[in-house]
Amino acid sequence: MTASFIPPQRILMGPGPSDVPQRVLDAMARPTIGHLDPTFVELMEQIKAMLRMAFQTQNALTFPVSAPGSAGMEMCFVNLVEPGDKVIVCRNGVFGGRMLENVKRSGGVPVIVDDAWGTPVDPQKVRDAFKANPDAKVLAFVHAETSTGAQSDAATLAKVAQEHGALTIMDCVTSLGGTPVLLDAWGIDAAYSGSQKCLSCTPGLSPVSFSERAIARIKARTTTVQSWFLDLNLVLGYWQSAGKRTYHHTAPINPMYGLYEALVMLEEEGLENAWARHRAMHETLKAGFEAMDLKYVVEASSRLPQLNAICVPEGIDEAAIRARLLSEFNLEIGAGLGDMAGKIWRIGLMGHSARQENVEYCLKALKACLS
Amino acid sequence: MTASFIPPQRILMGPGPSDVPQRVLDAMARPTIGHLDPTFVELMEQIKAMLRMAFQTQNALTFPVSAPGSAGMEMCFVNLVEPGDKVIVCRNGVFGGRMLENVKRSGGVPVIVDDAWGTPVDPQKVRDAFKANPDAKVLAFVHAETSTGAQSDAATLAKVAQEHGALTIMDCVTSLGGTPVLLDAWGIDAAYSGSQKCLSCTPGLSPVSFSERAIARIKARTTTVQSWFLDLNLVLGYWQSAGKRTYHHTAPINPMYGLYEALVMLEEEGLENAWARHRAMHETLKAGFEAMDLKYVVEASSRLPQLNAICVPEGIDEAAIRARLLSEFNLEIGAGLGDMAGKIWRIGLMGHSARQENVEYCLKALKACLS
Repeated sequence: MTASFIPPQRILMGPGPSDVPQRVLDAMARPTIGHLDPTFVELMEQIKAMLRMAFQTQNALTFPVSAPGSAGMEMCFVNLVEPGDKVIVCRNGVFGGRMLENVKRSGGVPVIVDDAWGTPVDPQKVRDAFKANPDAKVLAFVHAETSTGAQSDAATLAKVAQEHGALTIMDCVTSLGGTPVLLDAWGIDAAYSGSQKCLSCTPGLSPVSFSERAIARIKARTTTVQSWFLDLNLVLGYWQSAGKRTYHHTAPINPMYGLYEALVMLEEEGLENAWARHRAMHETLKAGFEAMDLKYVVEASSRLPQLNAICVPEGIDEAAIRARLLSEFNLEIGAGLGDMAGKIWRIGLMGHSARQENVEYCLKALKACLS
Repeated sequence: MTASFIPPQRILMGPGPSDVPQRVLDAMARPTIGHLDPTFVELMEQIKAMLRMAFQTQNALTFPVSAPGSAGMEMCFVNLVEPGDKVIVCRNGVFGGRMLENVKRSGGVPVIVDDAWGTPVDPQKVRDAFKANPDAKVLAFVHAETSTGAQSDAATLAKVAQEHGALTIMDCVTSLGGTPVLLDAWGIDAAYSGSQKCLSCTPGLSPVSFSERAIARIKARTTTVQSWFLDLNLVLGYWQSAGKRTYHHTAPINPMYGLYEALVMLEEEGLENAWARHRAMHETLKAGFEAMDLKYVVEASSRLPQLNAICVPEGIDEAAIRARLLSEFNLEIGAGLGDMAGKIWRIGLMGHSARQENVEYCLKALKACLS
């Protein structure tokens, strides 16, 4: 017979999932109710309202997709890109590359704007791309590149897109709840995030938000959305106001309880206080790294406080250090992805992980392993 | 400030989700670990092994999709159907219709075999469809129609497909764990289910299984799978044996704990005992319905024990009864879908809900509301 699974108690300081507060875990274990239960419908409405606070938007169509962030990404592309549409896609890390893959699979014609990994997207290159492709219909970029720790200037990029009459799709998987994400102030048309980063919920849900312009574009489509599961025309009926809901799929009930509780906690702390906390913990961690002579991958001006990518010192077997941190200290930190594999560590200070005790523990453990 | 959400304690006897045992809920609340943690990788391996037991298959590629059953369905179609492929799709309820929608969106050419709602798929019609379409590459059917409570003869249907060299896609969302699902004995090539029915886990995961023939077909594709999130070529790398795993998406960690525990409980009870329990509870419920003069929608020969669709008696406002059951008795039962809306009730005896106390409670409550 198989035994029940009792996971170890880790300290999660990788690129996500982050530490999940006990309140959120407790919420996950509450009794399951039906997804058409009026009480659950009320819960959905409150989740939508709190997500609007987190995204800083009035968008009516703001809700969590019943699947991880990659599905949230795909929902944006399959709905907003029609075959033949030209899409300017910025690539300065793994997730920009994944956006490109989504453009292609949606039948879009990609125009790629490349920037070096570890640097932000260069707005001038985006302006040039629009100049060369005035018929581009969408600009897609990653706000906070989880693979490198670089933050791009979303306000400026969105403005460039608006000047050229294009919609904007933004990946804010790692930024939402950790650094300012201002959908309405910036004029972003579609954004997707994840539950397991700075919101500190368990992984598996992808908060998304769509502007009225985005909805108008979707309603004006001349082709069917290729995905049934992610077709916003259908999902809209499921997530719209209580009383008018039509069955689409069965929502993940208990993970929704968890996301709800995580959002209540964000509301209690206050969004701006949460941003300030991420910033303060980053400053402390950075001071510790500097004392250890560890170098950041990203320039200070575009460094994400919640994702600290540092260079592995010369002559160090980075995988062995990570394995030791996990086995001896129960501490998870992240490896590099793609071109940066073996060269960097990614240390997350996301959501509930962005605490003084975590910062001190991480510095102590890393010091012990590197000495 | 928003208050924490404390759901009511319902008794779930609708078409799913079913009652979730406390052990599964407790598992959901255990500490979150990383999705690349070696301990989580071991958990994935054990989930795969237990799902093979549940599906009665040796298929190496057996795992839970990180999203609800509708995404599991879509995974089967977008991977196995290439643009222009002819697909015979059987439609005897809502979910056959959803399969048809998936065929179209995958670029397939559907050949529809219609049977009346509430009846099983007629194998002779499927034979005729293959005779008229010898180039059909896939047969798709629903084993247990959740919208009507009818079970189709999967063994015979799969055999017809094999005789014509076609692959078989089977929906066993409502049958897995409740009535025999014998993938290998029947020769099914792709099957998808849901976590929230007879497995009694919370909703949000979709167990799937693919045969070697199915994998060969996917590897021989000449076109890219249209979905990035559901592309088996990529997902394979994530769910394959430990040590060789490549990052694809972040799995929903805590729901996986829940599914694991639900499968441990199934293993403890024994699959055949679970089938027998569903059958026995159905017999008791049926006797009670007959005593109340309530009629079944489906003939006894193809009636699902775990989904009891009964006709609403003449002159009864069915929605008012359901609302009263929920508010006065905390009991959820299901309404009819599509053509059957307003005409039937769907009473589930799935997984942990298939217990003597639930059966008695349901009969008592329904009697009180109808008298």
